[in-house]
Amino acid sequence: MTEPDARPHVVIVGGGFAGLWATRALADAPVRVTLVDRRNHHLFQPLLYQVATAGLSAPDIAAPLRHILRKQRNVEVRLGEVVGLDPGARTATLADGEALRYDYLLLASGATHAYFGHDEWAGDAPGLKTLDDALAIRRRLLLAFERAEACDDPDERAAWLNFAVVGGGPTGVELAGTLAEIARHTLRREFRNIDPAQARVRLIEAGPRVLASFPESLSRKARWQLERLGVEVVTGTPVTAIDAHGYRLGEAFEAARTVLWAAGVAASPLGALLEAERDRAGRVRVAPDLSVPHHPEIFVAGDLASVQQDGKPVPGVAPAAKQMGAHVARAIRARLAGRTAPAFRYRDYGNLATIGRMAAVVDLHGLKLSGALAWWFWLAAHVFFLIGFRNRIIVLVNWAWAYWSYQRHARIILGGADAEAPRDDR
Amino acid sequence: MTEPDARPHVVIVGGGFAGLWATRALADAPVRVTLVDRRNHHLFQPLLYQVATAGLSAPDIAAPLRHILRKQRNVEVRLGEVVGLDPGARTATLADGEALRYDYLLLASGATHAYFGHDEWAGDAPGLKTLDDALAIRRRLLLAFERAEACDDPDERAAWLNFAVVGGGPTGVELAGTLAEIARHTLRREFRNIDPAQARVRLIEAGPRVLASFPESLSRKARWQLERLGVEVVTGTPVTAIDAHGYRLGEAFEAARTVLWAAGVAASPLGALLEAERDRAGRVRVAPDLSVPHHPEIFVAGDLASVQQDGKPVPGVAPAAKQMGAHVARAIRARLAGRTAPAFRYRDYGNLATIGRMAAVVDLHGLKLSGALAWWFWLAAHVFFLIGFRNRIIVLVNWAWAYWSYQRHARIILGGADAEAPRDDR
Repeated sequence: MTEPDARPHVVIVGGGFAGLWATRALADAPVRVTLVDRRNHHLFQPLLYQVATAGLSAPDIAAPLRHILRKQRNVEVRLGEVVGLDPGARTATLADGEALRYDYLLLASGATHAYFGHDEWAGDAPGLKTLDDALAIRRRLLLAFERAEACDDPDERAAWLNFAVVGGGPTGVELAGTLAEIARHTLRREFRNIDPAQARVRLIEAGPRVLASFPESLSRKARWQLERLGVEVVTGTPVTAIDAHGYRLGEAFEAARTVLWAAGVAASPLGALLEAERDRAGRVRVAPDLSVPHHPEIFVAGDLASVQQDGKPVPGVAPAAKQMGAHVARAIRARLAGRTAPAFRYRDYGNLATIGRMAAVVDLHGLKLSGALAWWFWLAAHVFFLIGFRNRIIVLVNWAWAYWSYQRHARIILGGADAEAPRDDR
Repeated sequence: MTEPDARPHVVIVGGGFAGLWATRALADAPVRVTLVDRRNHHLFQPLLYQVATAGLSAPDIAAPLRHILRKQRNVEVRLGEVVGLDPGARTATLADGEALRYDYLLLASGATHAYFGHDEWAGDAPGLKTLDDALAIRRRLLLAFERAEACDDPDERAAWLNFAVVGGGPTGVELAGTLAEIARHTLRREFRNIDPAQARVRLIEAGPRVLASFPESLSRKARWQLERLGVEVVTGTPVTAIDAHGYRLGEAFEAARTVLWAAGVAASPLGALLEAERDRAGRVRVAPDLSVPHHPEIFVAGDLASVQQDGKPVPGVAPAAKQMGAHVARAIRARLAGRTAPAFRYRDYGNLATIGRMAAVVDLHGLKLSGALAWWFWLAAHVFFLIGFRNRIIVLVNWAWAYWSYQRHARIILGGADAEAPRDDR
């Protein structure tokens, strides 16, 4: 029903931090914007591990893109998946066959899990990128304790109570720390045949230390905090095999029914649709203004973009994605005004990672915090940045409750969680 | 790890209102109790329609059975499905092969949807009994508006915006009223190509009036309130066919992509495992003390029990299920003490149904309320009865927010909601 529109058309693919921030920054620009996402919601990814570990409900950390953008009249939100790009004809084709003609295109479709050439591990070691991933992991964690409770064979029971998280970056640290808390505190006294506190939670990092993007002193503190929570931290040893029965660490096979993958990310496959140079992780190497070389009308931002600054890569974190998104909006405005787009410059305000109740590390370039103070800082920052006023209140109430009671309210198994599912349905 | 235990073993199948209330009422009885449920949570079913219509998150209205019962040391909670009963050997067999030997058995596995011999309608007209049902309905409702927005063909668009709820009982009334509110208010201004307020919401009841279990004056008021919310109420006409493209009402075919089923329930198939007389809906006809004739050690309670009182059936509502559950606990205690179990007597305190924002009907035997006052009464009663202190607070905050803003926070499409799903995946 939209009439022919003379305004330049900006197509933005992906409603994550980069895409959404670009969209918002084009609010009063003389363009019309189409924001395409495969999902109907923007996701506050930094809290995804809380949904996976039953501390928050899925809707607590997500908001419908349409709702966020309802007042921005130059935007149309489109639920759809881009399956083809034709830079010559300047069209992006959706899965339903519709071709969107663009004047400017922003690809901000993010990243997905990478199994380093072992895609066969995906079924036995799920990763955490979407709300559906989080609910699948939640279901698996909760069912593992149920299976252990119902099981008479000691070896099988031990395998159900053996949890491994592969990858010692922020997501792996969060998952392992929270999982240890669940076993030690949340589930205490709820079972009759097992003691959940006997569960073994292992965090496995192939490199020499956890949280490698932090200063070494904070990595040490993070490890110490993890161990205090009951996590066994293994560094310097790669996982060499994963199947339904367990995993191989170096030479030793560990019987474990629950392995979570937090070790690798690869750029969204959308980058491959461009004829542009990509790095090892599949990210598109962009020009200083974030456009694609030889295609000044195409931009890439967020986890899909490979950007070097001062000899180091700009990290794949939310603040960088937001800054890139906002920059692309500025670049498009500059082009429209006949000016040259400025170069992107990442402002690094610091680095935070949470570990568990009252445990976190914060690196503010010079100011390093760990423990309870770092945790309060992390909490304040994350609640502040949560999109949507309502979500912030709810998340705070949930957290206050969880903190006071050690309880996690979302311990509901959803999605074909019936007990008749085969025991090997992992 | 439990040692041989001389206490009589009570097996309770189903953790709904009947099973959970029976379990709790056996807290200090000289028995050990095993509570078996296919799901890990007790569900506050009266608010399930709020999850289906994106007003509440799934965990808001559910609590893990283990958590509710963690302090009751004579109970073991077992995630599992009963697939066989042997009243002679007094065993209940689970899907994983384990046979639970009981001294007393309570079957409280509730009800499921019934399509009156048209099971082929199930895929195109989902019903609402579990959290997974609610999330599937939520997904379907939200996707319908997305499909309409993306669609160029006026007929197809109209079919996506045509919603029908079959069945004018409390669930049908709640779904239709809330759906009309979503279209008229919640989604206002969020779409660019469609006006959600143009959506057609029809409530279809084959009998002469909606809410047939209420006095006629309240049925009239309910109908009037529904119509004021924008629902088209059709009574006295049965739906005679449903498929992926629409439904047949009398002789006319209506192109509609979303049909919800709230017309019929049938007792859980577990009742058929007993060699006992059952009514037309499959409910087990029980003796006055709720035991199964010829099997004084087997009880049936809740929606699975067919109980007559003063010539009328006891209704399938939460208060009746709770009372039956508590009664069965009393009956078991009486038997253990060598006394005769008393007869069950249902105390009917009244009947409530909600319709939408500030719209409800309440029948307290003599005192009849409708409109805003009835709605406040309904809200207070439901929040009061919600299990778990935390859930009550969260639900209240959610409602306060929803009321103030007309917004529904859980409008998140989960579960393979990617746009590449075929358009006919309904």
